[in-house]
Amino acid sequence: MLPDLRTAIATVCLSGTLDDKLAAAAAAGFDGVELFENDLLADRRGPAEIRERCAGLGLTIDLYQPLRDFEAVPPDVLARNLRRAEHKFDVMAELGVQTVLVCSSVSPDAINDDDLAAEQLHLLASRAAERGLRIAYEALAWGRFVNGYEHAWRIVRRAGHPALGVCLDSFHILSKEDDPRAIRAIPGEKIFFLQLADAPVLPMDVLQWSRHHRLFPGQGDFDLTTFTRNVLDAGYRGPLSLEVFNDVFRQADPYRAAVDARRSLLALQDSLGLLDVPAAPRATGYAFAELVGGPDLASLGFSRTGVHRSKPVELWTQGDARVLVNAEGEPGEIGALGIAVPDPAAAAQRAKVLLAPPLSRTAGPGEAPLTAIAAPDGTHVFLCADDDWLGDFVPTGESAPGAGITGIDHVALTQPFDNFDEATLFYRSVLGLEPGATAEFAAPFGLVRGRGVSGGVRLTLDAALVRRGGWAPAVPSPQHIAFTCTDAVSCAEALRQSGARLVEIPGNYYDDLAARTDLPAERVAALRARSVLYDRDEHGEYLHFYTELAGARVFFEVVQRIGGYSGFGVVNAPVRMAAHHEARRGR
Amino acid sequence: MLPDLRTAIATVCLSGTLDDKLAAAAAAGFDGVELFENDLLADRRGPAEIRERCAGLGLTIDLYQPLRDFEAVPPDVLARNLRRAEHKFDVMAELGVQTVLVCSSVSPDAINDDDLAAEQLHLLASRAAERGLRIAYEALAWGRFVNGYEHAWRIVRRAGHPALGVCLDSFHILSKEDDPRAIRAIPGEKIFFLQLADAPVLPMDVLQWSRHHRLFPGQGDFDLTTFTRNVLDAGYRGPLSLEVFNDVFRQADPYRAAVDARRSLLALQDSLGLLDVPAAPRATGYAFAELVGGPDLASLGFSRTGVHRSKPVELWTQGDARVLVNAEGEPGEIGALGIAVPDPAAAAQRAKVLLAPPLSRTAGPGEAPLTAIAAPDGTHVFLCADDDWLGDFVPTGESAPGAGITGIDHVALTQPFDNFDEATLFYRSVLGLEPGATAEFAAPFGLVRGRGVSGGVRLTLDAALVRRGGWAPAVPSPQHIAFTCTDAVSCAEALRQSGARLVEIPGNYYDDLAARTDLPAERVAALRARSVLYDRDEHGEYLHFYTELAGARVFFEVVQRIGGYSGFGVVNAPVRMAAHHEARRGR
Repeated sequence: MLPDLRTAIATVCLSGTLDDKLAAAAAAGFDGVELFENDLLADRRGPAEIRERCAGLGLTIDLYQPLRDFEAVPPDVLARNLRRAEHKFDVMAELGVQTVLVCSSVSPDAINDDDLAAEQLHLLASRAAERGLRIAYEALAWGRFVNGYEHAWRIVRRAGHPALGVCLDSFHILSKEDDPRAIRAIPGEKIFFLQLADAPVLPMDVLQWSRHHRLFPGQGDFDLTTFTRNVLDAGYRGPLSLEVFNDVFRQADPYRAAVDARRSLLALQDSLGLLDVPAAPRATGYAFAELVGGPDLASLGFSRTGVHRSKPVELWTQGDARVLVNAEGEPGEIGALGIAVPDPAAAAQRAKVLLAPPLSRTAGPGEAPLTAIAAPDGTHVFLCADDDWLGDFVPTGESAPGAGITGIDHVALTQPFDNFDEATLFYRSVLGLEPGATAEFAAPFGLVRGRGVSGGVRLTLDAALVRRGGWAPAVPSPQHIAFTCTDAVSCAEALRQSGARLVEIPGNYYDDLAARTDLPAERVAALRARSVLYDRDEHGEYLHFYTELAGARVFFEVVQRIGGYSGFGVVNAPVRMAAHHEARRGR
Repeated sequence: MLPDLRTAIATVCLSGTLDDKLAAAAAAGFDGVELFENDLLADRRGPAEIRERCAGLGLTIDLYQPLRDFEAVPPDVLARNLRRAEHKFDVMAELGVQTVLVCSSVSPDAINDDDLAAEQLHLLASRAAERGLRIAYEALAWGRFVNGYEHAWRIVRRAGHPALGVCLDSFHILSKEDDPRAIRAIPGEKIFFLQLADAPVLPMDVLQWSRHHRLFPGQGDFDLTTFTRNVLDAGYRGPLSLEVFNDVFRQADPYRAAVDARRSLLALQDSLGLLDVPAAPRATGYAFAELVGGPDLASLGFSRTGVHRSKPVELWTQGDARVLVNAEGEPGEIGALGIAVPDPAAAAQRAKVLLAPPLSRTAGPGEAPLTAIAAPDGTHVFLCADDDWLGDFVPTGESAPGAGITGIDHVALTQPFDNFDEATLFYRSVLGLEPGATAEFAAPFGLVRGRGVSGGVRLTLDAALVRRGGWAPAVPSPQHIAFTCTDAVSCAEALRQSGARLVEIPGNYYDDLAARTDLPAERVAALRARSVLYDRDEHGEYLHFYTELAGARVFFEVVQRIGGYSGFGVVNAPVRMAAHHEARRGR
């Protein structure tokens, strides 16, 4: 029997007024919230009315955290703290919340004395118990004297009061690389609360890291699955609650952020075997990529090999690369991706459980039923079985000789500023793709953050690090499809002959390439002559070139991977971006 | 005789393509640039053409930095490095740049051997000298073995080559709190280059701090004046060159950023006594604040005491508070501030030298000539002598009893996302106001960063930490005028009686105030009854209340300062913001 854990989210994760936050949490399917003090203080409703509002939305209030710097203080400070606590207990009674969080002290008043801390927490717990409340004590990673969970637990154990337990927060534990296995030694009933947050590993002050850069589970670098398994193995059965301080989420649409948050917990439950859902699909490749509008695929050596039976869609192919061109919709962008999976129905079921927005599709008589979902950036993602869908296209019999393109290497999707982390989690959880390392680079109009996600298919996601302002060009975020070939230099030559509009790379780039590598002069000359870019890693090489923009925001790349090169030539992206910008400006 | 120092800016400071950057630097009046390798590589023009373009714009290329991890390496790496250097020397000859920067190595190949470093730098300098070039060696704060400027200088001295000197970068020195006084021991002719950057003091990894958070001099926490004085005392007479890596500047309009940058160097030169410009004005107070459109000042106890002789402007007064209401322009915002200064002509001359955009004004016959400049957020700033300008208003004879307002305490101007640091520097350099500490707080729609600037008058500047997206409310950035009073509770009572629309503060706020302070219950009750907010610091107390929005983006605050309280009640800003938002939504 799988434990059916409740889910909660701290109001501090979301943007807006308290009512915006509560409505968003409820709409996303959370069972409860952690109420942040500032959200309460700024609300016109009294605590009892807030309790009613939550109940009306189907939400419980699972935690409240109005107390700071409580324990191990001199008697006069203790008296003040107790007085404040009693005030807050009054509020808790009205709110109907049972558990109050007490974080380890960061105060200059604090004394390094575990016995004193235990004694004062015991006193607080006694007062709480009189009102049917309980105290969850948590070690902040930057606590003055108590900054590890095992230390907090020692103090709780020493205090020995039934209304006193610990709160475990994954950020405070994993940011310090504390071993979560010792959690199993804590009796489950003494773990009063569990706060979950992921984060990228960043070389910075832990307090700033915590306050600005937390992420929902699955979006960062922490192993939340192992962490949470330890907590469940200890016997904890309380809510899985998100406490994520993030500068971007804090100003994003709370309804959208709440769905992203809930998906993170569903994916975590799945990784723990607690969710009744089909396993992540194992993609076998791109069935197709679909373009809206009509870029010139003929000049890239593609043949128009099929026409859809009922829709204004053409099929263009070359080698194993298949591109659909849809005459309907906003022209000049990538409208859809077809991902080949062994069991589309199971993949669709998984997508539904993980809150991927379904797209309704109409299939004509005899046409393959296709399941489609919307990715965070609006791209339609089709889950296809093998090549069934090809039957929907009437063959034209057309067949051009081709230019050496053999398939689709990856698709590059530029993400809206707010959705970078959401997109990572979407592809990871819904489609089972694994994110690579995040890289940042300086593009002509500001910093860009990017990462690949892969597993059967490769995607790259990137976003401006700072939301674009008025100065940025009107087309800040082109998308592209990267095709594979076996010889980039000859493919570029063939495409140039057939009239493809390829991006010209400055001579300065090749002068530098000659200076910084040991490539033979004739190799550099061949790359220079065809504007082919070059990268290498410890496993191999990457040769690639680009077309000019072929629509409102689409272009193409052709890549040749040599050896085990696993990247995407990101080092060359600024040169490509500048070239695209110059070409646009020149037109 | 003041040394006439040239000014330069690194292309990496600015957004856009190389040509955007060069044009912006030239337009702002810089004499030269540091050319960044990536800007060169991405440009279609060869080095000789770039040299011509710079010459055409009146710019020299003062520094080029294509070499990394050069020194103290094994022989095979040295051979590769020298080969690369020779390639780059070819480029330098075409660019017409004489000085190349070599930063201390961060490579795992590097060896901790100063003799070897000196020997290899000597070899590089010999090669450079053969071409009439020279090497500036700089200690990166995160250099593997060489990370202090005195260490770099020891190696340069040991190498003993005339074409080898040091480059000093204020960030690398001041970020580590290295004492800049030892710079005076370096012979001026061995300081080949000076790079200037300010920064806020941030508790983070120095490399990330350097790459993302540098600021132009005068915008951060470093003492660039003392630093630069040491360099000049050593005898350096080369350019003052800005090398500022900043995520926001990198995506901002480069023309505007370049002016901000140039202003920072002019202000630095002024602080060193190197600029022939009148001293910063010593403001004596607000002459007036001007509103566009007509909020209801009568309900705040103001009297319409004058009408302008030639313009559709009314003068409203109460105590020493004077507010102009201008019927022309975009209604509902603060259009102008009148700052009283002893010598407006001198202040105007200073503003001009410091590149403050002048505003043309027409004065009717017999009217006081008023000098006005545009602040970064577009607010007009008038520089007024005493009360001369009052003569432009025909007295009405009207006089209401008033509600206890006695003057203007401060004006709060919300800054556009990109202009927060520019605004700080503008008010600091042009008007001589001193910035206070920067504070960040969580507002309902995202984090806000704010700081006060003061000196005779007080201003607060704040900006969203992340540029606002679609979710943020349509009026995200109201401005306000804060009036002084001597008794906030009775003033609030009087204004409520006279029909002023004051913001209602939630009862939860007062429950918390009672819990966390020792204020007498009757005091809390009095504040609660009038929706007066409360703050205290170690010097005194602050009582304040707000009106609802009185125009498109304007409201008013009334404050009572008790004792030496020096803040602005920032702790209460989120409650105020939520209340304003609820009131707007409710209407």
